[in-house]
Amino acid sequence: MIFIIVLNCRIFDENYRMHTIAQYREYFTAYLSEKTNTKKPTNLYEPITYILSLGGKRLRPVLVLMATELFGTDFKKALDAALAIEVFHNFSLVHDDIMDDAPLRRGKETVHEKWDINTGILSGDAMLINAYQLFENYEGETFRNLAKLFSKTAIEVCEGQQYDVDFETRDDVTQAEYLKMIEFKTAVLVAAALKMGGIVANANLEDQNSVYEFGRNLGIAFQLQDDYLDAFGDPKTFGKQVGGDIIENKKTYLYLKAKELGAAQQQKELIDMFSIRPDDSSSKIARIKELFKETGAAEETQKAIAVYTAKAFEVLEKLDVSADKKAVLKKFGNGLMVRRV
Amino acid sequence: MIFIIVLNCRIFDENYRMHTIAQYREYFTAYLSEKTNTKKPTNLYEPITYILSLGGKRLRPVLVLMATELFGTDFKKALDAALAIEVFHNFSLVHDDIMDDAPLRRGKETVHEKWDINTGILSGDAMLINAYQLFENYEGETFRNLAKLFSKTAIEVCEGQQYDVDFETRDDVTQAEYLKMIEFKTAVLVAAALKMGGIVANANLEDQNSVYEFGRNLGIAFQLQDDYLDAFGDPKTFGKQVGGDIIENKKTYLYLKAKELGAAQQQKELIDMFSIRPDDSSSKIARIKELFKETGAAEETQKAIAVYTAKAFEVLEKLDVSADKKAVLKKFGNGLMVRRV
Repeated sequence: MIFIIVLNCRIFDENYRMHTIAQYREYFTAYLSEKTNTKKPTNLYEPITYILSLGGKRLRPVLVLMATELFGTDFKKALDAALAIEVFHNFSLVHDDIMDDAPLRRGKETVHEKWDINTGILSGDAMLINAYQLFENYEGETFRNLAKLFSKTAIEVCEGQQYDVDFETRDDVTQAEYLKMIEFKTAVLVAAALKMGGIVANANLEDQNSVYEFGRNLGIAFQLQDDYLDAFGDPKTFGKQVGGDIIENKKTYLYLKAKELGAAQQQKELIDMFSIRPDDSSSKIARIKELFKETGAAEETQKAIAVYTAKAFEVLEKLDVSADKKAVLKKFGNGLMVRRV
Repeated sequence: MIFIIVLNCRIFDENYRMHTIAQYREYFTAYLSEKTNTKKPTNLYEPITYILSLGGKRLRPVLVLMATELFGTDFKKALDAALAIEVFHNFSLVHDDIMDDAPLRRGKETVHEKWDINTGILSGDAMLINAYQLFENYEGETFRNLAKLFSKTAIEVCEGQQYDVDFETRDDVTQAEYLKMIEFKTAVLVAAALKMGGIVANANLEDQNSVYEFGRNLGIAFQLQDDYLDAFGDPKTFGKQVGGDIIENKKTYLYLKAKELGAAQQQKELIDMFSIRPDDSSSKIARIKELFKETGAAEETQKAIAVYTAKAFEVLEKLDVSADKKAVLKKFGNGLMVRRV
């Protein structure tokens, strides 16, 4: 007979101040360096060390740590869960980069480019398994709940990636389908990161679900904003090539809205331009941006971003934590949504 | 506070007779058909249904069910664990077939051949995650122990695959390294299948480890025999092309033994012949087979097979189950080792 006793320990008093995002990131990157060492066989583990060292904002692991502290538990207890989320995220980048035939990731060679496709496949597989192994550092129901949420999320990310691939060759994608795709491909992992913090902190189920919904809505808003900025962002601050989606004829929310709202002639022009790939794309990009504005698609996309952001903040109100703790999440959300416009 | 009570229930009396391998297989294939249905997105799940329907001997899931009943628990309780093992095995086939550029699997098109490489990568990823999800049907420590053993085994399978890839371009592979490679690539999954039965049946740890060691040794013997039969098997019954490893210049145990035992001239001839790929390989195959015999490598390989098989049966003696139950495992082991010679 085995007894497992789960106690909810809240370690902080009311005057406790949460750490800053920069501090979470600093703790996380130190932990990441400590934990990633290239074991044998080197050809399997070196690409893992490589991709994990390329940097990035470490948004998802920071969210795990933040949510843990939000629910009154020492965020250091969540470092392994945070690492699992980051390892999984990088696994998906390695495999997606193969599928997209992408040469660069964060300005450096992708894994399949630096090594080869087979290495990318196998090292990616190992990362997915390693992510699960990190949950073994948690006992009893915490382990089970983390692994279960992780599997559900990972499957959704795969489904989202499949929808994204499918949509490339489909002309009848609806806005609802597109929103589901970005939810699965991007938003559920943000949501799961926050909920994992709740699981580690043994927060009540309602709070876990609220923080998940906050992340899910914020994630959708974030991806819609990414679509918007791809066309209308400032080249100096956007980080990626402005107009990249237009060059690739990617049917983003802006495109789907323009197709819905445009007059017959505008619709025709849009569809025609999204079937060509001119060598010099500058006039195509300029004209498509005009169409996005003329049809009202640009404005509607901004409205949708505002709606999902508002939903995220609304669900935050339900959380059973103090106002100054909520403020940390709000600050994070605002910081994310005012970027690069 | 949560109490989890784990009881070891042995449902059979002493006169209970275990099911036959054919019965386990029948139950398993029925369960497999019941559980595999093509969800949406179709392009993600159809390849999974396809590869799982191609058949095969279903050895690994049969071992899970057999071990469960061996330890006195209804084997039907182990169907999800058995399915997880089979799904994982097929995941590894899908990804390995991409890496090996293999057009056929069980006489049918491989997934990446029927669809494309990207589909093979993504559907494989989803299968790996699905395998973990099947363990969610077990409670408490059973879930944890299954997932933990599964992760350890899955990582070893990846490492084994990486060693196999690495060895293709290395000339200094030792016999010890080769044995470790086949242990990881093949034997640990056989061993884990048996131990999972022990976990589902809540067998004592010593018995779990004994049945694991039985499987590990039998798995190594099986793979060494596969190497042997690749050269000396009967083309009518071997199932694969006899001489396939010789054509591919694959440095199997036979090759490594011949290189160790051969005189200088034989060593040179062996190395020279393993650097060419003639259009008509029949005389190369014939000469290599002679060399395997002349150097004593063929005999030494048979000895090694006998040693690992004997080790497997020896460890079986330690098991705390009745003699007639052990006999079922022995019969299985013998059936496996007298195949196709």
